[in-house]
Amino acid sequence: MTSTALLTDQYELTMVSAALAAGTADRRCVFEVFARRLPDGRRYGVVAGTERLLDAFADFRFGPAERDAVRDVVDERTLDWLTDYRFTGDIDGYAEGELYFPGSPVLTVRGGFAEAVILETLTLSILNHDSAIASAAARMVSAAAGRPIIEMGSRRTHERAAVSASRAAYLAGLTATSNMEAARTYGVPSAGTAAHAWTLLFADADGPDERAAFAAQIAQYGTDTTLLVDTYDITAGVRNAIEVAGPDLYAVRIDSGDLGVLARQVRQQLDDLGATSTKIVVSGDLDEYAIASLRAEPVDVYGVGTSLVTGSGAPTAGMVYKLVEVDGVPVAKRSSNKQSQGGAKRAVRTARDTGTVVEEILYRDGTELPDSVAGSLNTRALQIPLVRGGDRAADVPTLSEARSHLARGLVSLPWEGLGLSHGDPAIGTRYLNPPEAP
Amino acid sequence: MTSTALLTDQYELTMVSAALAAGTADRRCVFEVFARRLPDGRRYGVVAGTERLLDAFADFRFGPAERDAVRDVVDERTLDWLTDYRFTGDIDGYAEGELYFPGSPVLTVRGGFAEAVILETLTLSILNHDSAIASAAARMVSAAAGRPIIEMGSRRTHERAAVSASRAAYLAGLTATSNMEAARTYGVPSAGTAAHAWTLLFADADGPDERAAFAAQIAQYGTDTTLLVDTYDITAGVRNAIEVAGPDLYAVRIDSGDLGVLARQVRQQLDDLGATSTKIVVSGDLDEYAIASLRAEPVDVYGVGTSLVTGSGAPTAGMVYKLVEVDGVPVAKRSSNKQSQGGAKRAVRTARDTGTVVEEILYRDGTELPDSVAGSLNTRALQIPLVRGGDRAADVPTLSEARSHLARGLVSLPWEGLGLSHGDPAIGTRYLNPPEAP
Repeated sequence: MTSTALLTDQYELTMVSAALAAGTADRRCVFEVFARRLPDGRRYGVVAGTERLLDAFADFRFGPAERDAVRDVVDERTLDWLTDYRFTGDIDGYAEGELYFPGSPVLTVRGGFAEAVILETLTLSILNHDSAIASAAARMVSAAAGRPIIEMGSRRTHERAAVSASRAAYLAGLTATSNMEAARTYGVPSAGTAAHAWTLLFADADGPDERAAFAAQIAQYGTDTTLLVDTYDITAGVRNAIEVAGPDLYAVRIDSGDLGVLARQVRQQLDDLGATSTKIVVSGDLDEYAIASLRAEPVDVYGVGTSLVTGSGAPTAGMVYKLVEVDGVPVAKRSSNKQSQGGAKRAVRTARDTGTVVEEILYRDGTELPDSVAGSLNTRALQIPLVRGGDRAADVPTLSEARSHLARGLVSLPWEGLGLSHGDPAIGTRYLNPPEAP
Repeated sequence: MTSTALLTDQYELTMVSAALAAGTADRRCVFEVFARRLPDGRRYGVVAGTERLLDAFADFRFGPAERDAVRDVVDERTLDWLTDYRFTGDIDGYAEGELYFPGSPVLTVRGGFAEAVILETLTLSILNHDSAIASAAARMVSAAAGRPIIEMGSRRTHERAAVSASRAAYLAGLTATSNMEAARTYGVPSAGTAAHAWTLLFADADGPDERAAFAAQIAQYGTDTTLLVDTYDITAGVRNAIEVAGPDLYAVRIDSGDLGVLARQVRQQLDDLGATSTKIVVSGDLDEYAIASLRAEPVDVYGVGTSLVTGSGAPTAGMVYKLVEVDGVPVAKRSSNKQSQGGAKRAVRTARDTGTVVEEILYRDGTELPDSVAGSLNTRALQIPLVRGGDRAADVPTLSEARSHLARGLVSLPWEGLGLSHGDPAIGTRYLNPPEAP
């Protein structure tokens, strides 16, 4: 086990230390995770990272090495407390793969102040990263309108973030990943055949030899492979590919240029060569807009990289982890524009009989949802148990379940909610009974 | 040791496998890493991640678990080859902390095709991430004009990327980090005291009690601490802070609102209360532009988060890893707009006697720099040995040396090169003898 205990900010440790000294460490607290807004005109967000979070919590332990690392920051009493640290409280949250909107309480952590505050940074790191990727990826999947998308962005992000990004992208509906660690750890199907370097490798003093490169690839993998045809001249590349592989070649890939124009040319050429079932894979700086713009073109598979792993302009989900209740009393920051709603909240989403969602309704935990809401539409409670008494709850959704859940959630949005253009959240959020913070 | 061998794309493994079968796996190859352009009007980039890269290479080993994970992707011959895998070639690169510009060959990997191509993804992941962060951070340091900056962005990025981001930020000149793992692993000074949750914790049914929160913090840490004064009302917060801590309080922090206006008000109030040496720390969505806009205000320390860890709009450096030479013959992709210069390159930077740099000159490896260049200005070779025969070279710069090297590098730029506004690279890059790719 690699401890996750130091993936935290110093101020959580100093707060724990001061709270132990002040006798306030065990006050019963509720922390909520939510995003004040969606990034950049987005219509919805996708909760992702929950399962990773629960795994990371299980490894949040202060062994001798971790204690040594924080010895200058906290006192002896705190070191003892950290040695014994186990989260003993309860956590509820939106299921992984659930849609969220501004203010949605996507995670609710109940416990003593110290045991709960210390999880802040790790919680936010995981949810903010994974949700940012999944939220961007879901838009790409919508834009692709059923065509498969391969995630190949590992090289454009931190080497460990890449693995989590592959997972989040798969959750959002991408088909496969180039990342071998994501394939091993999360069972994401993997894909990938050859880079331009492969074709260049067969050049010598006499010049390029694309046919030799293609022949070597076919010799190793048969025709069920994808030949990269844009290293030199694409028309020659396609001709070489089919001459070497025959018309049963699985696919050609184009990684540069005006992909729409090239896809049409290559499709025509493939068809003329009798390779009517050979697929066309396109890649190269694709984002959701570029994917959508290729919808009318004869593209069979998309490869996405940079844009996917950087959240397509929104690399972090901007969620915060806020103390909302202390010993049953709602609390909230009050200065400036960052005001929050105090008090633990419950969340339901209402839907018409058609399944189309109408709005999200938040109400104070411990109160009843009024009949006027409960009776008028189909309501679905959004929070599920994730941790009970420090132990992982039963039936936390798997990655595969989260993937299906998101697919159903996207179908439930009003049609304008799937638009790529900037706009308001797909549905509104209404807070029934805002409590007064003291 | 945690193996890094699966932090790679499937296509590298399939290329290795096909190359072993084709007898081309050991062709002597040169791969170069470079960025075709700087992001978004930036004037310079900062090379970062080199030391992490060399550590990751040392852990690039295929044990039984890694072999099992790729068994479906490669053949038995390849599995045997992976079992024995050790990089045996040479690597040169720009020193960590070196400035780079479009086309700068920041890393040059020489070895057999298979042993070198397999390092592509890991190399790019590390350099693209760390260089993106360091490049953004360096601009923040310039904008801060000598005032310290604390990195506190861990919660806004992947939990492991956060650690590397802290390191890259420190390299670029930030003063401290909130991240405890970065403090342990890289010795970055750590900082942090309390969040709004701390102040809220002391609220009860009778209402807020900011003074109790401040008193508890002072009781634990003395007056050498930073009190967060914007949970409720800032003016009352500052008054409470000084009444509780006395005029020797180290600092107050403001995390929201119009920071310039608030800093002036708070400075005046602190001075009026006799707390003339109490510092003002500001945080909250700061980027290099916001930092610069506060230059005339009485701010003593900046805290940066989201913008730092997301590269301030450029979360990846966009570097590529390209095969440029096979058995001594220059090679390059030729289709479309992604054309590259074939052939391994050497790089020097020329400077006036004042130390101000003039341009970057690239020339074909194995040729001599013409006297017309070598004699006219001060020239400095930019590439240093990083790996020799598979072993780490002596005298690879440490993090601390990289930090000093960058500070010197920034001073060497023409004055317009430190501008925050969008523009051209600070210096031009000239390629003396572009070879013809075959």
